[in-house]
Amino acid sequence: MKYSFMNDYSEMAHPRILEALSAVGVKQFEGYGLDEYSAGAAGLIREMLSAPSADVHFIAGGTHSNLVVISSILRPYEAVIAPVSGHIFVHETGAIEATGHKICTREGRNGKLSAADIESVVLEHSDEHMVKPRLVYISLSTECGTVYTKAELTSISSYCRSNGLYLYLDGARLGPAINSVACDLSYIDIANLTDVFFIGGTKTGALFGEAIVICNDDLKDDFRFILKQRGALLAKGAAIGVQFQALFADGLYDELAMRSNAMAKKLAEGIKTLGYKFLFPVETNIIIPVFPIAIASKLHELYGFHDWRELDDMLAVRLVSSWAAPESMIDEFIADLSAL
Amino acid sequence: MKYSFMNDYSEMAHPRILEALSAVGVKQFEGYGLDEYSAGAAGLIREMLSAPSADVHFIAGGTHSNLVVISSILRPYEAVIAPVSGHIFVHETGAIEATGHKICTREGRNGKLSAADIESVVLEHSDEHMVKPRLVYISLSTECGTVYTKAELTSISSYCRSNGLYLYLDGARLGPAINSVACDLSYIDIANLTDVFFIGGTKTGALFGEAIVICNDDLKDDFRFILKQRGALLAKGAAIGVQFQALFADGLYDELAMRSNAMAKKLAEGIKTLGYKFLFPVETNIIIPVFPIAIASKLHELYGFHDWRELDDMLAVRLVSSWAAPESMIDEFIADLSAL
Amino acid sequence: MKYSFMNDYSEMAHPRILEALSAVGVKQFEGYGLDEYSAGAAGLIREMLSAPSADVHFIAGGTHSNLVVISSILRPYEAVIAPVSGHIFVHETGAIEATGHKICTREGRNGKLSAADIESVVLEHSDEHMVKPRLVYISLSTECGTVYTKAELTSISSYCRSNGLYLYLDGARLGPAINSVACDLSYIDIANLTDVFFIGGTKTGALFGEAIVICNDDLKDDFRFILKQRGALLAKGAAIGVQFQALFADGLYDELAMRSNAMAKKLAEGIKTLGYKFLFPVETNIIIPVFPIAIASKLHELYGFHDWRELDDMLAVRLVSSWAAPESMIDEFIADLSAL
Amino acid sequence: MKYSFMNDYSEMAHPRILEALSAVGVKQFEGYGLDEYSAGAAGLIREMLSAPSADVHFIAGGTHSNLVVISSILRPYEAVIAPVSGHIFVHETGAIEATGHKICTREGRNGKLSAADIESVVLEHSDEHMVKPRLVYISLSTECGTVYTKAELTSISSYCRSNGLYLYLDGARLGPAINSVACDLSYIDIANLTDVFFIGGTKTGALFGEAIVICNDDLKDDFRFILKQRGALLAKGAAIGVQFQALFADGLYDELAMRSNAMAKKLAEGIKTLGYKFLFPVETNIIIPVFPIAIASKLHELYGFHDWRELDDMLAVRLVSSWAAPESMIDEFIADLSAL
Repeated sequence: MKYSFMNDYSEMAHPRILEALSAVGVKQFEGYGLDEYSAGAAGLIREMLSAPSADVHFIAGGTHSNLVVISSILRPYEAVIAPVSGHIFVHETGAIEATGHKICTREGRNGKLSAADIESVVLEHSDEHMVKPRLVYISLSTECGTVYTKAELTSISSYCRSNGLYLYLDGARLGPAINSVACDLSYIDIANLTDVFFIGGTKTGALFGEAIVICNDDLKDDFRFILKQRGALLAKGAAIGVQFQALFADGLYDELAMRSNAMAKKLAEGIKTLGYKFLFPVETNIIIPVFPIAIASKLHELYGFHDWRELDDMLAVRLVSSWAAPESMIDEFIADLSAL
Repeated sequence: MKYSFMNDYSEMAHPRILEALSAVGVKQFEGYGLDEYSAGAAGLIREMLSAPSADVHFIAGGTHSNLVVISSILRPYEAVIAPVSGHIFVHETGAIEATGHKICTREGRNGKLSAADIESVVLEHSDEHMVKPRLVYISLSTECGTVYTKAELTSISSYCRSNGLYLYLDGARLGPAINSVACDLSYIDIANLTDVFFIGGTKTGALFGEAIVICNDDLKDDFRFILKQRGALLAKGAAIGVQFQALFADGLYDELAMRSNAMAKKLAEGIKTLGYKFLFPVETNIIIPVFPIAIASKLHELYGFHDWRELDDMLAVRLVSSWAAPESMIDEFIADLSAL
Repeated sequence: MKYSFMNDYSEMAHPRILEALSAVGVKQFEGYGLDEYSAGAAGLIREMLSAPSADVHFIAGGTHSNLVVISSILRPYEAVIAPVSGHIFVHETGAIEATGHKICTREGRNGKLSAADIESVVLEHSDEHMVKPRLVYISLSTECGTVYTKAELTSISSYCRSNGLYLYLDGARLGPAINSVACDLSYIDIANLTDVFFIGGTKTGALFGEAIVICNDDLKDDFRFILKQRGALLAKGAAIGVQFQALFADGLYDELAMRSNAMAKKLAEGIKTLGYKFLFPVETNIIIPVFPIAIASKLHELYGFHDWRELDDMLAVRLVSSWAAPESMIDEFIADLSAL
Repeated sequence: MKYSFMNDYSEMAHPRILEALSAVGVKQFEGYGLDEYSAGAAGLIREMLSAPSADVHFIAGGTHSNLVVISSILRPYEAVIAPVSGHIFVHETGAIEATGHKICTREGRNGKLSAADIESVVLEHSDEHMVKPRLVYISLSTECGTVYTKAELTSISSYCRSNGLYLYLDGARLGPAINSVACDLSYIDIANLTDVFFIGGTKTGALFGEAIVICNDDLKDDFRFILKQRGALLAKGAAIGVQFQALFADGLYDELAMRSNAMAKKLAEGIKTLGYKFLFPVETNIIIPVFPIAIASKLHELYGFHDWRELDDMLAVRLVSSWAAPESMIDEFIADLSAL
């Protein structure tokens, strides 16, 4: 198989994750996430966030997290605002609509919404013949690999709080974002500025699992009912708790995120040196260089990756660096590219 | 913590499961279940079922499996028939109704529906002012720990096929059922007699995971769309594939199921010897003895288990034996009980 | 066509209803129920209810009213409690489940729930693995033609208010109920004891239309969004407003309800005189006598009516008297029956 | 009250409609649309369409029709393609999403989609991570008051049939469209080129009511179940049947549609003579002239109408002419406008 830059979930799990799972042995635990490991992991996360009263729930995957969170918040006629590139709008097979809710979109910029984008949606929804926007969905990092700055997120958060909107942040790649040099946000900022968000484990070294953090008290009630109803309450919830303990007990999560970023940065610098441009700023472990179509085709013979968009006779392609990407593959890619 | 007979998902995973996951290392795989491990596991299952054209999909949990399968089959006004004790009716927080469908119930007997039960539901639904029953849901083993015989399942299957109903079997505990001496059904029979079913991994040694098997061609189209839309398509689907390869490559699954049954049988025999009766026939790894309330209360101080139902001054309690239950705990429980 | 006792919606509308609609001519009005006629009708209803702050919304039909009201109140995992004979459970093709909610039932008595029935549902729902009952649905009159007494409804209302449940009353036949000699409840009592209910026009002389009355402030917000989303906000909502003005301006509604009851009473007395019994107390315009099957078969040749239930060699049948039933047909039915 | 050009449902009903309803008297009929009037009206429509095997169902309103039809056709992950100006996308409070389905939009032109627009949606949906477009929704006339030509509709229909898409036409204003000089389509063409459509009564003289016509056999099964489940099966369905008999027995429907168009044409010509332009071609009874904001403000003091869109210092406004619009009001509007 060709080496793949398709995504950051192509390798199983960091060895320390699997070791932690093995270390439990046949010790019994409570079912459905009421176990000591999940409690411990939630404690570590609350501490990291300086958010002692936040609720933390573990769930297997990101699409599932999105549909559970969004459907738990909205009344039937309420809608969610998202960028057109938002994962919930494009790549979740209508999961949000399947729970009954419309997604109102704006183009945004570099995968990001601004407060002005959000306001323009709010202003065009005036009466009961239209849905009522009630929740804003953003991703950090975005599908374009970009990050929000603290100023940007603060502006969105302020607008939401002044206008009766909740703010939900999809953190499937929160680690690479927070550890990006382009991002001046801390985990604590995320907890302060959003109402609910999740910290993605699957794409940063875990076998599977995301940690949903509910910061706003209004959104906490009966969340476990929603989890159960949507099939998201795993019998062995402990299996996620153990992993998040391993990720957050001593910095493994950030370490893996930084490594993903570093490999992507090296890759981007190599590509740039060869004279190619990028569609978006290079900020995390997703980079989107633009190659002539012929070059891209030859690269496809050597490596796995997704095409992003055609631009006349050029092709923007998405290269994702994983926590497990060997540095040698980065070197090899650059060498192969320079030889084309 | 007290030793728990509450369920069969209180221990993490059989060591060979975790070893198999570790053995993958950082080898890359395709995302979303399109990997070689899932393909391999599906192949083993198809072979075991003598069902070369069956579709096999892996999913994280049982409630999720139920809602995905049922909502993929039914048109909006169609309903599912289930026993009143059915997991979908009692213990899934309205997950099926949340996908829009009514569950029509019959009391059944020992947790089981009969063809006559099903027919009585069909007959009372006559026109467009009522839902249209279209699917039958049964469990093997049942919530009562009982099993269907081949004659019983054949009768249900025949009725369904003659009357335009699909038959779906919840096999969260299929291993203990098939390996029960009370059950003359084989895995092959299940594939032949049902339209779709799942083989439960979570409760028989896996870390997590169930294998949905679609036998009827009519139900195969676009199933992955439904999985994705419901949040059930795991990015690292390979993590379930690896586990099912470990479970079915050389008999581990049946071995663990048999061990669960054997421990339950020993426990039941000890209880019976002490003069207590059971609410249902003892057939798999769930047994439901009836104790005087005072005895049950004292047992609660020593062991974890769920109450099933009060019967005047008696209490039926549910004891579940896991694949990991140490024989010593069985002995201890009997000794403690005989001392009360 | 045979004369039909099948229901009370087999005739178009009382002449004064159609005259009122014609009287509007081509006078323009606001769309979607924001017109002066709807406002006027709402005012009459609020006055009758001594409920100046109640919200009144008009809607075309009863099933639609039920699904709109119930889905506007419940969060996704919340359920509604109803009698097994409840219209929403039996005869609405899963309309409530289609909005995502489970209906928890109790047998009740004579089509009625008691506070004890409701409590028994509440007590068996203990945690997030089960739905959370949040709303009670009852009908007045019931499907059996019976009525709640003030004591019965007060008991239910008190239980609901003490236990965080909302109470919704389906008043498709509220007129016949309130005007029943067996019913000591007034319209004002209904407004005081329930959180939301509707006054049925369709079955008491209107061309179509029901008036939803929301008494509890907590349930008022954004109700028009729900109406619109479910397809219930008629462009010419004024057409219902005009009808309810005609029904409630000078007593037409009660007059028609009383006439329905009187015809049913005469019919019941004739049947009783001939020695037949009734399945339920005769209280409104629905009566359910029990005939030998042979007698019932002969009656079917002469009249239209629905069978209710077989009882060994007897058949309970449902006879409904409309506001438009000619007294001569009652006499004829009795004469025909006595001749059999 | 100011005279209103807001819409074509501001007057109750044409006198012949109300006369037809009154003429029924207290004659009994079957409930739920199984009456002779509905059958008669369906027969007239099938004859007009030269579609003897089409199914015809009557329903109270347009939004309700849209959600019923669309949710009856699609599997959960399937989506509908619509223009961004489509009523279902903008003005139905997320009714389609509330049944679980995503709407994929294209800008289109003058409120219309082209086959190329549809193809571009289809091409971008490639796998199970995205919804599967399965149905195309268009309106005739459109929200912009424009019509499709026979060539345009044929092109769309051909694309749909070649690519496994169903075509649904919202005919809330089908009368004004078919009777437009700009439209070379006949009712028969509509039946031949679409899979399902509805003929709007509410906006062309009826008290309320739309006739859903299902042309494609694949979409006919169990439609009444869907109607009932969504609250759309009126007890007195006969009340719509009677109206459609009156509309289609002797040309009343087309007569009223033509009158609406004629009044709009006169209004448009007067506006044009005064030197104003229109945002879209003037083709039916909805016209969208562009006025300086100051002029529009003064007109608002004199007449009721909706603003459509700001264009720098100009305002496009929507003027709708009803079947009941008095010619004197058209003259008056032009006179007032010329005086500003």
